Amino acid sequence: MLFLVGLGLGAPDDITLKGLKAVQSSARVYLESYTAILPGHVADESSSSSSSVESVVTGSPSGLQALCDAYSIPANSIKLADREFVEQRSDEILENTEDGSDDEVNVTLLVVGDPLCATTHVDLMLRASERGTKVSVVHNASIVNAVGTCGLSVYRYGEAVSIVFFTDTWQPDSFYDKILANRQRHNSDALHTLCLLDIQVKEYDPVAMSRGEFRRNPPRFMDVHRAARQLLAVEKKRGQNAYGADTLAVGLARVGANDQAVAVGTLEEFARGSAQERAAAAARAASEEDDDLDEEERERLELGRFDAGELGPPLHSLVLCGTLTDVEQQALERWRRVAV
Amino acid sequence: MLFLVGLGLGAPDDITLKGLKAVQSSARVYLESYTAILPGHVADESSSSSSSVESVVTGSPSGLQALCDAYSIPANSIKLADREFVEQRSDEILENTEDGSDDEVNVTLLVVGDPLCATTHVDLMLRASERGTKVSVVHNASIVNAVGTCGLSVYRYGEAVSIVFFTDTWQPDSFYDKILANRQRHNSDALHTLCLLDIQVKEYDPVAMSRGEFRRNPPRFMDVHRAARQLLAVEKKRGQNAYGADTLAVGLARVGANDQAVAVGTLEEFARGSAQERAAAAARAASEEDDDLDEEERERLELGRFDAGELGPPLHSLVLCGTLTDVEQQALERWRRVAV
Repeated sequence: MLFLVGLGLGAPDDITLKGLKAVQSSARVYLESYTAILPGHVADESSSSSSSVESVVTGSPSGLQALCDAYSIPANSIKLADREFVEQRSDEILENTEDGSDDEVNVTLLVVGDPLCATTHVDLMLRASERGTKVSVVHNASIVNAVGTCGLSVYRYGEAVSIVFFTDTWQPDSFYDKILANRQRHNSDALHTLCLLDIQVKEYDPVAMSRGEFRRNPPRFMDVHRAARQLLAVEKKRGQNAYGADTLAVGLARVGANDQAVAVGTLEEFARGSAQERAAAAARAASEEDDDLDEEERERLELGRFDAGELGPPLHSLVLCGTLTDVEQQALERWRRVAV
Repeated sequence: MLFLVGLGLGAPDDITLKGLKAVQSSARVYLESYTAILPGHVADESSSSSSSVESVVTGSPSGLQALCDAYSIPANSIKLADREFVEQRSDEILENTEDGSDDEVNVTLLVVGDPLCATTHVDLMLRASERGTKVSVVHNASIVNAVGTCGLSVYRYGEAVSIVFFTDTWQPDSFYDKILANRQRHNSDALHTLCLLDIQVKEYDPVAMSRGEFRRNPPRFMDVHRAARQLLAVEKKRGQNAYGADTLAVGLARVGANDQAVAVGTLEEFARGSAQERAAAAARAASEEDDDLDEEERERLELGRFDAGELGPPLHSLVLCGTLTDVEQQALERWRRVAV
């Protein structure tokens, strides 16, 4: 039997009783490590720490051990499985899992969120079926439904979009058309849009690669500030008024964790950046000739008085609000902060 | 402290460890009984059994007791809370929950699915905040993300719709515009649409009411067959080609339960009905003059050879497929049955 077990939003005690039974009955347990991370202390986007993949994925260097302890299974019995492993070494994962065979064992693949929220694992399920292995899915919460925590109805969202880190040469903006479709519907209220923000945990450094060295970049997690800036940059380029500086948005961080944070503000307010960013900019300004500050930078320093974005460490998600119902309006008021 | 605890898809062991801790720490535990039901043996739409609300909501007359046993809490310590109770008697629910007060207790409201997947409980959260009660939300799976089990990407759904039981005089079809918007997007592939099907567990019998008697109707749960027929009836009326008889759909039943069922077929195939319905129609036909069969009925009997819809008891959901990716196509092939 192959169990695909959702870990929910990521704390060890977010697993379900059904999932825990599956883990404890399994001869081998893998933790999928490429589509999400467990929350906890992870380096933020600006950090240059060279965290190991394990510490990033599990939230601490001893994260896998913490999971083993929480699940009452032997130490070192959870193995990290990256994309290549799941896709190319599925024979190893599925070994001896055939239904009714003499040496049949259970195997569990742990997945942060819900195991089937993307089609990523359908291929593994199909391979399992081909070799006569039964598959059991243990569902759990994912950002797709837990985003309801901000007070916007989960049933009033249009298609979700992904926003990846822009580089100087690569700025994919296919999200723009989707947001446009969600917000400018014929004869109908605008829908909300959930923006899933980029996670880069195992990227190779392209500069080092050009020298023949395979060195990984430090992990990066997009925050709501960068997402807002990228969104506004694309609106400037495309100019179809899918949204604008005044568009109301909700920033969410570490949804479901004890230190979950939610903030409401306009895209422009989010774009101004976190207190940390603004402090760094102010320090740069102090150490430079005033004349070197360009107008945009100066404006950001002056305007950076709103705390919409004080959301702290990753993971962040951003919601672009559509038309609000009265209840949604009231629910969002909870997160509105006064400018200081 | 007020805990809003998601029960996930409904079996007792679908609760998370975090949710279980909340329940076990609570002086009072309520089960929200109006937006969903726990799975198990529930009367289907055609049944005339007069099941009690408790047996319907919890799946068996001893359902609440089974939950108490599963959670290792005292017998009879879970109270059913219907809509009126949650909305109008929130003072009773929130009694002595104020943060830091001398007699502070924890209280848990159990909710099938995810507690914040609709805005239903935002009002209770706001009332709690007003009186100084901390609120902790324990997320869990809901149909919104668990629908991924069929193999269609959860990120490629447009706005979800609700389909309610039509009567002779009341046939609300606001879902039509939403499906149209999901399927006919400008410059873009069509999105999938999740159709949430009506549940009526505490409806008063209007005929009895007109005689001054308050008698509840037996519970009804819409199945995929009726949903498909209502959808096609509305298309016939509206005629904007939002979908049609050939539109591919996925029927899902008891998602996440051990006896979960999934079937793929066209809307027309689903509309033909279940084996039970077809057998009943055949029996009626045998006991009547052949001439009494109208053309539509005869056609349904003749065409009813596809088992797309053999999904069994509630709860059912229906997905209208948008444009399929290759992986989605392959994933759906698993559920395709051969006509018999």
